[in-house]
Amino acid sequence: VRTGTPEVVFAAGKTPAETVACLAGLLAAGVRPAWATRVDDTTAAAIRERWPEAVVGGQARCAVVGPLPDPVGEVLVLTAGTSDGPVAAEVVATLAACGVGARRVDDVGVAGIHRVLAVVPDLAAADAVVVVAGMDGALPSVVAGLTDRLVVAVPTSVGYGAAFEGLAALLTMLTACAPGVLVVNIDNGFGAGVAAARIVRSSSGGPPAQR
Amino acid sequence: VRTGTPEVVFAAGKTPAETVACLAGLLAAGVRPAWATRVDDTTAAAIRERWPEAVVGGQARCAVVGPLPDPVGEVLVLTAGTSDGPVAAEVVATLAACGVGARRVDDVGVAGIHRVLAVVPDLAAADAVVVVAGMDGALPSVVAGLTDRLVVAVPTSVGYGAAFEGLAALLTMLTACAPGVLVVNIDNGFGAGVAAARIVRSSSGGPPAQR
Amino acid sequence: VRTGTPEVVFAAGKTPAETVACLAGLLAAGVRPAWATRVDDTTAAAIRERWPEAVVGGQARCAVVGPLPDPVGEVLVLTAGTSDGPVAAEVVATLAACGVGARRVDDVGVAGIHRVLAVVPDLAAADAVVVVAGMDGALPSVVAGLTDRLVVAVPTSVGYGAAFEGLAALLTMLTACAPGVLVVNIDNGFGAGVAAARIVRSSSGGPPAQR
Amino acid sequence: VRTGTPEVVFAAGKTPAETVACLAGLLAAGVRPAWATRVDDTTAAAIRERWPEAVVGGQARCAVVGPLPDPVGEVLVLTAGTSDGPVAAEVVATLAACGVGARRVDDVGVAGIHRVLAVVPDLAAADAVVVVAGMDGALPSVVAGLTDRLVVAVPTSVGYGAAFEGLAALLTMLTACAPGVLVVNIDNGFGAGVAAARIVRSSSGGPPAQR
Amino acid sequence: VRTGTPEVVFAAGKTPAETVACLAGLLAAGVRPAWATRVDDTTAAAIRERWPEAVVGGQARCAVVGPLPDPVGEVLVLTAGTSDGPVAAEVVATLAACGVGARRVDDVGVAGIHRVLAVVPDLAAADAVVVVAGMDGALPSVVAGLTDRLVVAVPTSVGYGAAFEGLAALLTMLTACAPGVLVVNIDNGFGAGVAAARIVRSSSGGPPAQR
Amino acid sequence: VRTGTPEVVFAAGKTPAETVACLAGLLAAGVRPAWATRVDDTTAAAIRERWPEAVVGGQARCAVVGPLPDPVGEVLVLTAGTSDGPVAAEVVATLAACGVGARRVDDVGVAGIHRVLAVVPDLAAADAVVVVAGMDGALPSVVAGLTDRLVVAVPTSVGYGAAFEGLAALLTMLTACAPGVLVVNIDNGFGAGVAAARIVRSSSGGPPAQR
Amino acid sequence: VRTGTPEVVFAAGKTPAETVACLAGLLAAGVRPAWATRVDDTTAAAIRERWPEAVVGGQARCAVVGPLPDPVGEVLVLTAGTSDGPVAAEVVATLAACGVGARRVDDVGVAGIHRVLAVVPDLAAADAVVVVAGMDGALPSVVAGLTDRLVVAVPTSVGYGAAFEGLAALLTMLTACAPGVLVVNIDNGFGAGVAAARIVRSSSGGPPAQR
Amino acid sequence: VRTGTPEVVFAAGKTPAETVACLAGLLAAGVRPAWATRVDDTTAAAIRERWPEAVVGGQARCAVVGPLPDPVGEVLVLTAGTSDGPVAAEVVATLAACGVGARRVDDVGVAGIHRVLAVVPDLAAADAVVVVAGMDGALPSVVAGLTDRLVVAVPTSVGYGAAFEGLAALLTMLTACAPGVLVVNIDNGFGAGVAAARIVRSSSGGPPAQR
Ligand SMILES: Nc1ncnc2c1ncn2[C@@H]1O[C@H](COP(=O)(O)O)[C@@H](O)[C@H]1O
Ligand SMILES: Nc1ncnc2c1ncn2[C@@H]1O[C@H](COP(=O)(O)O)[C@@H](O)[C@H]1O
Ligand SMILES: Nc1ncnc2c1ncn2[C@@H]1O[C@H](COP(=O)(O)O)[C@@H](O)[C@H]1O
Ligand SMILES: Nc1ncnc2c1ncn2[C@@H]1O[C@H](COP(=O)(O)O)[C@@H](O)[C@H]1O
Ligand SMILES: [Mg+2]
Ligand SMILES: [Mg+2]
Ligand SMILES: [Mg+2]
Ligand SMILES: [Mg+2]
Ligand SMILES: [Mg+2]
Ligand SMILES: [Mg+2]
Ligand SMILES: [Mg+2]
Ligand SMILES: [Mg+2]
Repeated sequence: VRTGTPEVVFAAGKTPAETVACLAGLLAAGVRPAWATRVDDTTAAAIRERWPEAVVGGQARCAVVGPLPDPVGEVLVLTAGTSDGPVAAEVVATLAACGVGARRVDDVGVAGIHRVLAVVPDLAAADAVVVVAGMDGALPSVVAGLTDRLVVAVPTSVGYGAAFEGLAALLTMLTACAPGVLVVNIDNGFGAGVAAARIVRSSSGGPPAQR
Repeated sequence: VRTGTPEVVFAAGKTPAETVACLAGLLAAGVRPAWATRVDDTTAAAIRERWPEAVVGGQARCAVVGPLPDPVGEVLVLTAGTSDGPVAAEVVATLAACGVGARRVDDVGVAGIHRVLAVVPDLAAADAVVVVAGMDGALPSVVAGLTDRLVVAVPTSVGYGAAFEGLAALLTMLTACAPGVLVVNIDNGFGAGVAAARIVRSSSGGPPAQR
Repeated sequence: VRTGTPEVVFAAGKTPAETVACLAGLLAAGVRPAWATRVDDTTAAAIRERWPEAVVGGQARCAVVGPLPDPVGEVLVLTAGTSDGPVAAEVVATLAACGVGARRVDDVGVAGIHRVLAVVPDLAAADAVVVVAGMDGALPSVVAGLTDRLVVAVPTSVGYGAAFEGLAALLTMLTACAPGVLVVNIDNGFGAGVAAARIVRSSSGGPPAQR
Repeated sequence: VRTGTPEVVFAAGKTPAETVACLAGLLAAGVRPAWATRVDDTTAAAIRERWPEAVVGGQARCAVVGPLPDPVGEVLVLTAGTSDGPVAAEVVATLAACGVGARRVDDVGVAGIHRVLAVVPDLAAADAVVVVAGMDGALPSVVAGLTDRLVVAVPTSVGYGAAFEGLAALLTMLTACAPGVLVVNIDNGFGAGVAAARIVRSSSGGPPAQR
Repeated sequence: VRTGTPEVVFAAGKTPAETVACLAGLLAAGVRPAWATRVDDTTAAAIRERWPEAVVGGQARCAVVGPLPDPVGEVLVLTAGTSDGPVAAEVVATLAACGVGARRVDDVGVAGIHRVLAVVPDLAAADAVVVVAGMDGALPSVVAGLTDRLVVAVPTSVGYGAAFEGLAALLTMLTACAPGVLVVNIDNGFGAGVAAARIVRSSSGGPPAQR
Repeated sequence: VRTGTPEVVFAAGKTPAETVACLAGLLAAGVRPAWATRVDDTTAAAIRERWPEAVVGGQARCAVVGPLPDPVGEVLVLTAGTSDGPVAAEVVATLAACGVGARRVDDVGVAGIHRVLAVVPDLAAADAVVVVAGMDGALPSVVAGLTDRLVVAVPTSVGYGAAFEGLAALLTMLTACAPGVLVVNIDNGFGAGVAAARIVRSSSGGPPAQR
Repeated sequence: VRTGTPEVVFAAGKTPAETVACLAGLLAAGVRPAWATRVDDTTAAAIRERWPEAVVGGQARCAVVGPLPDPVGEVLVLTAGTSDGPVAAEVVATLAACGVGARRVDDVGVAGIHRVLAVVPDLAAADAVVVVAGMDGALPSVVAGLTDRLVVAVPTSVGYGAAFEGLAALLTMLTACAPGVLVVNIDNGFGAGVAAARIVRSSSGGPPAQR
Repeated sequence: VRTGTPEVVFAAGKTPAETVACLAGLLAAGVRPAWATRVDDTTAAAIRERWPEAVVGGQARCAVVGPLPDPVGEVLVLTAGTSDGPVAAEVVATLAACGVGARRVDDVGVAGIHRVLAVVPDLAAADAVVVVAGMDGALPSVVAGLTDRLVVAVPTSVGYGAAFEGLAALLTMLTACAPGVLVVNIDNGFGAGVAAARIVRSSSGGPPAQR
């Protein structure tokens, strides 16, 4: 595994049987944990039936078969609103699978700026920050002005009308006035988690998990 | 003048002679002040030559011929960055022509949130707020969470790349999480000024200027 | 409640249990009325079961728990077509929850200009105007030429083809030739209602409701 | 000339020499008048030098060599604003070259609805109507509700920001609530003129000009 | 009925009961025929139950209550492919309700150019032409080069991928190289039918139907 | 040269000195001919000064230093209009540099379908067809229905308004109803020429030029 | 069959009965094999019932009635990811119906570049290459740099967020840095197959199948 | 300086005098070095005149007044093509101003994959990677599959047609199949440099420069 990132099954658009087969293949190849994202309820059930010990489903829609690595470091995961929760959960699940710790604080949208200011101590304590926001996607612009940590910004498809399925938040984050904001695809909690894990592991000096 | 808003000459795309003729026509009809926006340097010179007493040009690219009404009330005009200045100047010039006072505070972008917090007392003192911002356009989202005044948001074409000539800021403002944000066209300082003037005049109980 | 706007639950994308919990939290914090928008049938039922006295559902898809404030002033709410009704109903419900009166006139699209002209007396009597329109979104351009009141324009997703889910109406309203038009997000009756309420309350001199 | 429409030279993107050569070719083939659109100043000069009797340039940016047919019928050409003038002039020049009469009324934008109502008698007298409008492009929606004539709508690139070079007006016209509105390309005064000429000639029963 | 076009109920987004009520209102007001478009199966059933003699449903998804006017003239309605049928049927139904005759030839897409050439005699015989096409939308460009009749072009949402729900066909038609092409909204068979009926009625000199 | 395609200098965005240096480098490496595309006038002069024997400039904006290979086969290059000429010239120059023959027929837009039909014998004689078209981009749809040769379609940025700098033509070509149409980037005559050369060389069995 | 490409039924948007009727018509006209694409399960069942010997369904969603021609040559069909499988299967089925051989290698996305390099021998052995990729659509850029064969690139709608239903992959392929890449519509495996078959048949010198 | 990132003057849209004043202000406040980006030739001259010792201009269009910090670590900066050079130069200049070392390798576009493979040892030696690419923007997808370092991807506006001023490359990078790719705005070499510097400084354990 050249890149130090766990091989992960992207279950969206796969049948439950296909996802189970992919996970079985990874396990047979010695990958621990074997892991899938975008797992719907039927697929979750199929995985649970095959591996009763698997950690499956939940808000993160992930399935993990096999023991998680012990976590190092801490990534602060912020959401602007409650509806951004599933994407934030995918970030946290990804961090866990990569052996990195996470602390999640929800619903700190910029319309209530004092709640944002309240997380300044958390920012100082974190190794990296992931900010998840839909609608106007303004939170990373504010957070990046409050920290010298890297800010990984995840636009979400939360919203309606001129939110255009996450496009508004994506453009906001790409044009954020504060430097230090790096952007991933809309709803891509997995990609944000992998990136944040790399930041933590490079700064903690340890080797990447799951080689 | 049915709508209580001064008849204004939009000089963009008109020759200097055409703009001068339009202003002369308004003055002949008794309009005071007669007024033009988007005045370039050549047109400004032509106006100055015809009416030496006119207030012409400057950052606002406006020309006003005739005495300004005495101002009532106060609108707070905020910019996110220095480059948003010309649009903010058009807002202020429009307010002046409508007989409304203005207070302008520049460069309070959300990346420096403490500068935004410093204007909270100004927000409390204002009758209405106009927020001018390009790039990510995030400032109105934060300001609207700090005040019960109406926030008129003006996206600007400042920025590059994914700012898409003001589209990013426009979408941000339309999807602002805080209610109380109302949006005008990109770079439309004139429209924002007219709207803010109506808010002030309706709340101060006085009649609209220049009937 | 710093901004004078009631804390409101956005029920879209929340489970019925989550929305009920949010409302209960607001009520426990002393908010009167507690209020949710974008309430679907299942959520409406859950709210009714918990608070039999709640005003729930209807065309506005809102739920209000607790007594409404006595209304002050009057906002004129116009629709271009019958299909814009649900968004206009959300405006009216929002005004009611903010303690502001409303008068609604439907189906005055610009293709029947004499019906638009018939509301001129209503415009003169109103403290502010909200115009709700889909398809070509042309109604605010006409209305703003007939009044010196502020016009809050709400584009709707009504239409097909080149209406592009409300984009056509949104662009029309942003480029309206008459000044005094301020725009909110597509289908955002809530935002328009909050803004109109602020206009009325500031002009009536009274304090915002529900502090 | 199978389609009854004069062969026309589109001078944009051609050198003056190329346009002169194209016109000479048409004249050699017996076409009367020979005709070019989108003629810039240099090309206009080249045409005038070659054919001193040509009618060249003006707001319409057209050049016509040879006698115009006697006009039949009348098309009403309306503009929403002064800046739409060049496109309306192209419509009128095209009608003239097709042997159809025109009556032009300018600056009847919907923000001044009483000016629109003032053209109702002109609408009744016309064989067809061409409406030229930029910015919000709302005028055809209103006009089509006031007449049983066909309305040919020409969006223009006049405007800024969310006008998006004529896109806003184009979408407005395509989604006009009143039926009977037919749309041509942005700034396409030539196409609108040809179409209107066909309507008039088919209704007047006469043969198309210039076979 | 100022514009000579029948008042029509747009049933999309209305409940069956609402559409029935609208039709009943038109009938009570003396409109003959009363008419609805975009009628789905449930609404069709409701109309049939109320007015057993109504002509309801079919590919055109229209419902007509009351006798049709005797048809005058003939509009040629062409489709590029089989899948464009429902939109063409809406055109034909609209023409019938307006008292205009129609002749429909299907599946003459430009990829089989000899089938297009085969309709040249039909073009000569027609009073106006409506061309319905999805995917590349190229048919009107070819047809307009073969006739001196007006061509009303209707882009359809038929296609996938870069057809972008009819946008590709719409842009093709707006930029058609042959003049004489006029465009309506995507899938707007109703609008095309009304326009074509006006052309025929103005050229046949008769009064519009159903005043 | 692994791919059998000549290494080519893309001169756009390079200074004349940089382009000359790139060409010199290729020649030093034994490449014959050395070749550049998108050569403006200044760069053309610099190349001519350095290599007086170079074939430089012309409508194709290409520069070729060194002898051209003897041409094999024949590609038919069609344009819809005169303004598509420069792109067609780039196709022909590219074919020449790749050692493939070309036959060019201009101005066969679909609005004059009989001119298109006149090239049917040329289609039969060609090894491959390149179709260059702007505006509606409809020509490849028709041509592909008339031949069993591959059709390489090149959209051009010719046009205005809804042509959107070549986007309309691009979408048309991607959704062409006739199979056998393959598309390259807007204005990419170079890419079309390389592809057509490969088709000819693979069918003539010979080896690619300039290994 | 002028173009040497089998007449094919596009079953999407047709009822099972319509598709069966189209196939029966082709068979009655002597076409062998008769063939349909985009066949859903119900239509597949209807075809199987009518022609029990038909090859129907599978990942390719195609139905073929009648014997396949003996295959000549070989096209290499590559996919970037597992989810691109159905489109690749449509390519292979189309090649089979055109009498051309195929070799398919899956899941060689550029993120695992060594898997791409492993197909270099397959590239050398192929007559043409079809590359199927969604998400970033980067595979054709790499493949075209490794071969002198033509590369037919098929963007797929696989992905989410900024993949915008295949738009991201489409733009990538159109701007691929390596020349020799030709692009078809999103998900258009049929068009890619027809084009690749023409390349093979022209290079093998044989006549097109199924005249 | 709360965020550990140097205060930088964005000179685009500022007059030379304004930029000089901003730099003077930073120097007066003790900032070392004071620094500006997007410096055009006139502004560069004005800076050189005021501070003859300044490092000004060059491909990076940056100006630095005052001594650079000693560099720590190393960031690998890759470009896909020669034309991406100015953006890469801005990355390198930014790293230098932040006190971080850089190694730049140019022209390793994916069409020549062996040149990409040649940088694998450089990837292993780097603390972070910045990839700068226009046109198809495919390079980050390949690079991220070859390293466990974070990849900061910078789309550039290099290209034409469907490159849409950098949009094609931006979408490619956002949908890159390999995880570990983080994206900044089009042409935003400054933002990429700041982010890469933070990664290096956090992993080298040292404090951020220029507090
Ligand atoms: N939620 C996700 N979003 C984006 N990429 C993902 C996600 N989950 C997995 N992937 C990527 O998809 C690859 C597997 O795709 P597949 O072979 O189709 O299962 C993994 O190596 C990951 O890089
Ligand atoms: N299929 C259709 N497409 C576009 N507009 C329609 C259609 N059918 C009816 N209309 C228009 O919609 C108006 C009625 O809308 P409504 O009042 O909502 O029933 C009619 O006056 C027609 O102008
Ligand atoms: N007109 C053109 N359009 C697209 N690509 C081109 C063109 N001319 C040259 N190229 C490509 O650009 C590459 C050279 O780019 P450069 O290294 O910047 O000179 C060549 O190998 C060609 O593949
Ligand atoms: N999967 C497909 N994608 C694109 N075009 C197709 C496809 N299948 C068939 N076609 C085309 O559609 C035409 C038949 O359309 P139809 O007459 O509607 O059945 C055929 O001649 C093919 O050129
Ligand atoms: Mg919240
Ligand atoms: Mg600032
Ligand atoms: Mg109505
Ligand atoms: Mg006017
Ligand atoms: Mg067909
Ligand atoms: Mg021509
Ligand atoms: Mg894979
Ligand atoms: Mg290169």
